[in-house]
Amino acid sequence: MAAVKDLHRFVERARECNSPAEARRAFAPFLVGDTHAGFLRPEFAARLTTTFPDVFSRAGDVVQLSSSLASPQARTDAVGRCMRQLSADGLITGWREELLPVAAGFNQEPLFLLERAAVPAFGIKAYGVHVNCFVRTASGDLEVWVARRSRSKQTWPGMLDHMVAGGQPHGLSPTENVVKEAAEEAGVPEALARRAVPAGVVSYEVVVHEGLKRDVLFCYDLELPPSFVPTAADGEVEEFFRMPVARVMELVEATEEYKPNCRLVIIDFLVRHGYLAPEQPGYLALLAALRTGELS
Amino acid sequence: MAAVKDLHRFVERARECNSPAEARRAFAPFLVGDTHAGFLRPEFAARLTTTFPDVFSRAGDVVQLSSSLASPQARTDAVGRCMRQLSADGLITGWREELLPVAAGFNQEPLFLLERAAVPAFGIKAYGVHVNCFVRTASGDLEVWVARRSRSKQTWPGMLDHMVAGGQPHGLSPTENVVKEAAEEAGVPEALARRAVPAGVVSYEVVVHEGLKRDVLFCYDLELPPSFVPTAADGEVEEFFRMPVARVMELVEATEEYKPNCRLVIIDFLVRHGYLAPEQPGYLALLAALRTGELS
Repeated sequence: MAAVKDLHRFVERARECNSPAEARRAFAPFLVGDTHAGFLRPEFAARLTTTFPDVFSRAGDVVQLSSSLASPQARTDAVGRCMRQLSADGLITGWREELLPVAAGFNQEPLFLLERAAVPAFGIKAYGVHVNCFVRTASGDLEVWVARRSRSKQTWPGMLDHMVAGGQPHGLSPTENVVKEAAEEAGVPEALARRAVPAGVVSYEVVVHEGLKRDVLFCYDLELPPSFVPTAADGEVEEFFRMPVARVMELVEATEEYKPNCRLVIIDFLVRHGYLAPEQPGYLALLAALRTGELS
Repeated sequence: MAAVKDLHRFVERARECNSPAEARRAFAPFLVGDTHAGFLRPEFAARLTTTFPDVFSRAGDVVQLSSSLASPQARTDAVGRCMRQLSADGLITGWREELLPVAAGFNQEPLFLLERAAVPAFGIKAYGVHVNCFVRTASGDLEVWVARRSRSKQTWPGMLDHMVAGGQPHGLSPTENVVKEAAEEAGVPEALARRAVPAGVVSYEVVVHEGLKRDVLFCYDLELPPSFVPTAADGEVEEFFRMPVARVMELVEATEEYKPNCRLVIIDFLVRHGYLAPEQPGYLALLAALRTGELS
């Protein structure tokens, strides 16, 4: 049973993953038909509607995709051409050659597919999987497997991360994505990865240089046998190591060691496994802070 | 692993615990100082401000507790006198002689204490504990202990309920309340009840005859030894019995057997334990539907 310790520092850490509502209010709604699909910075909205008036039109504060683009394929092609030009102009950076769905909600029929590098510029919701990998020690306590990101990674170099996590690609279920990422990132055999248990979700919305990041992360728990040792397979991880949950809590609460969105997933894990209790001041504010982005 | 079954029926069952936003918009805000403490039906607001103008005053659409009542004790006494009169007039029914805190949030300093029977009339947030009591069978599957409410109970007679659940009284922590309710309602020894693990929260807001019920339920999991048998100690329960989780799921999804707020707690349990998966259509809408009431 957790002692009656104040959770307000955890609340702050969770809220740090989000931008204040004011910062988000400046963004212009982006509509595809009747669907409010995303949010655009005013400057990006202006660029789209002036450079590509056949594809993007403005109605008041709202930017709409041209209704003459009647099929998902037509929209994908037209927007794709615009994005390649903006990429050549240096406005869209980090081209991945990977298409993500733009839809009314997760798992729903795509309205069109958008190059991943352009997703934050459009404020499109993106999805991911994060797996809490842990071991139950002989004493019954949990130890968590942690990854330290390679210092050469472009994003969050050297920070602590989940052993298994990744963005949700188009056409793969979250559970299959867990199996794929577990194999690729940590050398987890498929039979073991399939023991991962889906256990909920966290979400956040944060203003970034590129636009608005709206992420929904599916949280999984995977209890591993004590003998299992992950292997860094793809050069993205510097090292894997195990830490007692109490140490993970300290790092999340009081340091910048963890990649910010991992903190939300870990706090959700701490809540679900009873490491935090309702009598601790800030408990409800903390739960509210875990799912601030729209769940759809 | 759950099959890819559509969850929209579960979403409907969860949403049934809430009233649509339109129904709630008719209520007048109730302020104590700067704190928005509750919501009043327009007729109830009018009754308060006309019958007790020294205690309740109106400013536009808002009803305020008189600022001349400077201490929690003064407010408790003054509102208590008003409520006794409204109880004598038959407007407040089911007097309990139990005071609940009115505060800016859970566990915060009470602004005043209010007779429990009047809490929905003021749209004050109320808190409770619900414990998912279960047994792990030899095959590894879970069986859930279920209570059938006495057919003579005033509320939800004969319906299925959690084995241990109860409203949160003033001055007792949720975890201590679990221990108390477990002993009183089901004869669970203290040492066993203390194994209950806090695991999150559900919330809902529903318009009822008395006003607006705004409930936050702290969810606990309690794994019981297979040999344990609960005993109905206080006449509120007709019988206890065990059901496989699969059967509980069917009853929640397709029948009116369960007391409505229990459905939310059970769905949260199903999510946390991996009985539902993100690839099932409706998953995110279902998670959103579990915490629609303000978390504070």
